[in-house]
Amino acid sequence: MEDESVVHKDIWFKCKLRVRYQETDQMGVVYHANYLNWFELGRTEFIRELGFPYHEIEKHGLLLPVTEAEMKLKHPAYYDDVVLIYVRLLEFSHIRMQFEVEVRRDPLDNGDMAERGLLASGLAPNGELLVKGTTKHVWVNRQWKPTRLDKAMPEIYTMLQDL
Amino acid sequence: MEDESVVHKDIWFKCKLRVRYQETDQMGVVYHANYLNWFELGRTEFIRELGFPYHEIEKHGLLLPVTEAEMKLKHPAYYDDVVLIYVRLLEFSHIRMQFEVEVRRDPLDNGDMAERGLLASGLAPNGELLVKGTTKHVWVNRQWKPTRLDKAMPEIYTMLQDL
Amino acid sequence: MEDESVVHKDIWFKCKLRVRYQETDQMGVVYHANYLNWFELGRTEFIRELGFPYHEIEKHGLLLPVTEAEMKLKHPAYYDDVVLIYVRLLEFSHIRMQFEVEVRRDPLDNGDMAERGLLASGLAPNGELLVKGTTKHVWVNRQWKPTRLDKAMPEIYTMLQDL
Amino acid sequence: MEDESVVHKDIWFKCKLRVRYQETDQMGVVYHANYLNWFELGRTEFIRELGFPYHEIEKHGLLLPVTEAEMKLKHPAYYDDVVLIYVRLLEFSHIRMQFEVEVRRDPLDNGDMAERGLLASGLAPNGELLVKGTTKHVWVNRQWKPTRLDKAMPEIYTMLQDL
Repeated sequence: MEDESVVHKDIWFKCKLRVRYQETDQMGVVYHANYLNWFELGRTEFIRELGFPYHEIEKHGLLLPVTEAEMKLKHPAYYDDVVLIYVRLLEFSHIRMQFEVEVRRDPLDNGDMAERGLLASGLAPNGELLVKGTTKHVWVNRQWKPTRLDKAMPEIYTMLQDL
Repeated sequence: MEDESVVHKDIWFKCKLRVRYQETDQMGVVYHANYLNWFELGRTEFIRELGFPYHEIEKHGLLLPVTEAEMKLKHPAYYDDVVLIYVRLLEFSHIRMQFEVEVRRDPLDNGDMAERGLLASGLAPNGELLVKGTTKHVWVNRQWKPTRLDKAMPEIYTMLQDL
Repeated sequence: MEDESVVHKDIWFKCKLRVRYQETDQMGVVYHANYLNWFELGRTEFIRELGFPYHEIEKHGLLLPVTEAEMKLKHPAYYDDVVLIYVRLLEFSHIRMQFEVEVRRDPLDNGDMAERGLLASGLAPNGELLVKGTTKHVWVNRQWKPTRLDKAMPEIYTMLQDL
Repeated sequence: MEDESVVHKDIWFKCKLRVRYQETDQMGVVYHANYLNWFELGRTEFIRELGFPYHEIEKHGLLLPVTEAEMKLKHPAYYDDVVLIYVRLLEFSHIRMQFEVEVRRDPLDNGDMAERGLLASGLAPNGELLVKGTTKHVWVNRQWKPTRLDKAMPEIYTMLQDL
């Protein structure tokens, strides 16, 4: 079956960032569109953790644009907050991927901005939930034509299956 | 009933913008988070058209943060494209609002960047559909507490009912 | 002489924009880096006015990256302000250009957002001065190598000389 | 003398960041205005290192807006690059500050994104120089009136003198 989706195991990746001044607006909170940037940053670091920096994938001529995005904003993030970005792969197929993301306020704020990594299977994110959402993507080539990942970069497709 | 939602009549507001260089990314298209900025810009101009510039509403101590957003990206917008932003009010209540937005490539590109206004009732948006989505909002005060629009600024609430 | 600079005649180009919510920060003013976006927007519209949309120049394989920028911030711009962007060409050579830009609060705010055009020679910008600055640029090709404008697109070079 | 400037000792602060996809433009490089964001990020982390998180200074009612900025762009930064931000205090007085910033490509890229700290006195930044610049600032209160740092937060002024 060409495009059978595979439900992923329950493994979250976590990374951290600190809210930049430029990301605030005159309400005194993070401007909402920036959460999509953070979603992307989480996906990027997740894929890097799995061994495939996205900039190398693009050098192979594969792009992964967003086709759908949705988010729910529970509580605002503030300037200089340390926030945790949690990401997991919800589904993937030969040409599509869907990620789930949670943005949480760091309950520890222990100063270790480099803290990151995969959580043990089944372990849940923690910290005050600020924003959650999902993004859907399709693999395309430089001419923006849908492209099968298992043909173009089979090593990534295999890695995803083994995850 | 406190929070009964009112389904709105089918009136679209239209305005225009030109894609900025800063809004592109290295894929050569508009970076997806920017569509949320354009959604906001459309809402702002829509509310201005109805007689209530949002900056004046904020001066009354009312804010309208986003609580949910979702969008589907059909085709990318490119640098220097002239795009039409279509907005309509899907629902509103004493404390909530939901907008629908469509981003379309201007089929005319007649150079009149100031073209804007309410479409006649029932008239549909035109132009190549690039992105569509919805945003949900809640009226809050400066302390970020939900606030009834019909109490805080009844003239706006009445205007919305009469729309 | 290869790179002789030509001092330009005193002709300002003017265009308009309205401050976006996303451009504000928690100080309640426009975040300073955004003025560089507006400088760019002014240059883009200036070049368009002269008959050469920048996106068409890029299609010819010529890029005009910024090599230097400086700005002085006199007064902040606020959300929803109507601001005038004034641009003029300070100098140009076979491979370089320098622009001067002024951002001013629109003294009229007459609602005509499409107002734009070249001022008569010698006519000065008006409106409250918010920010002024200059940017320097070099013409390069897609491999980022300096490229002579008079060789690559002589029609633009001639137009600049005749300005 | 009210506003005597003090030339600072030659101590650089260093921190790191990774280039975000959103920061690129269709030239395939970092959009130039983003360097000003990075300059700010460097200043923020420098001040944090000295013991005074800027968000706490703002809570005291002091703001430090930019009054002048200039930068020279030598080489572009690319997506996913690890860059070092070097900052030092050039001058300060009772009401003004001037910072110098250098953005350099990390020569090591050792994966330690948390690497940061003050360099020993006299030690020079290293790595490929991408962008350098300076920013000038004035201390103001919430009403945007110039405010003497030594009166408003003498502990910071003393710390700067002892640096």
